[in-house]
Amino acid sequence: MQRAAFLLKVRPELVAEYRARHAAVWPEMLEALRRHGWHNYSLFMRDDGLLFGYVECAESLEASLAGMAGEEVNERWQQAMAPFFEGIGGKPADQGLLRLEEVFHLD
Amino acid sequence: MQRAAFLLKVRPELVAEYRARHAAVWPEMLEALRRHGWHNYSLFMRDDGLLFGYVECAESLEASLAGMAGEEVNERWQQAMAPFFEGIGGKPADQGLLRLEEVFHLD
Repeated sequence: MQRAAFLLKVRPELVAEYRARHAAVWPEMLEALRRHGWHNYSLFMRDDGLLFGYVECAESLEASLAGMAGEEVNERWQQAMAPFFEGIGGKPADQGLLRLEEVFHLD
Repeated sequence: MQRAAFLLKVRPELVAEYRARHAAVWPEMLEALRRHGWHNYSLFMRDDGLLFGYVECAESLEASLAGMAGEEVNERWQQAMAPFFEGIGGKPADQGLLRLEEVFHLD
């Protein structure tokens, strides 16, 4: 298992809509995430749209991202979500996230 | 159990020292955290010192913070760490952290 955390930035004017979409993620998207080792996966947001992801990956974040990259439902999801993000040059979020370094852990 | 995430900002010039201190947190500080329901607790950092905390609290983050507030070792730790942070007006980090809202979770 590998713990991973990453950062993205949602456009401030789309924060409410981002929250609404994530309260109703497509079931087939959730199934694909599970299938590719995304466990205990949470997204946390600051009022201005700063977004933090925390996930425990079966193998590694790289492997979990690579697995999703081969899923048609992920392509549709990322396409629908792309307009929400800023600072990643229009790339899909799963290709533009900033990985953070773990500096402390207590089980 | 309550998942919680928070943000702090370490001074850029103290990032390396912050990392070093957190590779060697005092054993009595770790024991106090455990005693007050801090589980699966990780800190992640961006190069510039932006710091993201993720923790699973036995009851709530409020209760876990309140528990630590009564510990003498926490007072010493927070005093030692206070100079590392910016943007919280010199307050101890455990009184100045910005709580983030959970907008998505997948078990």
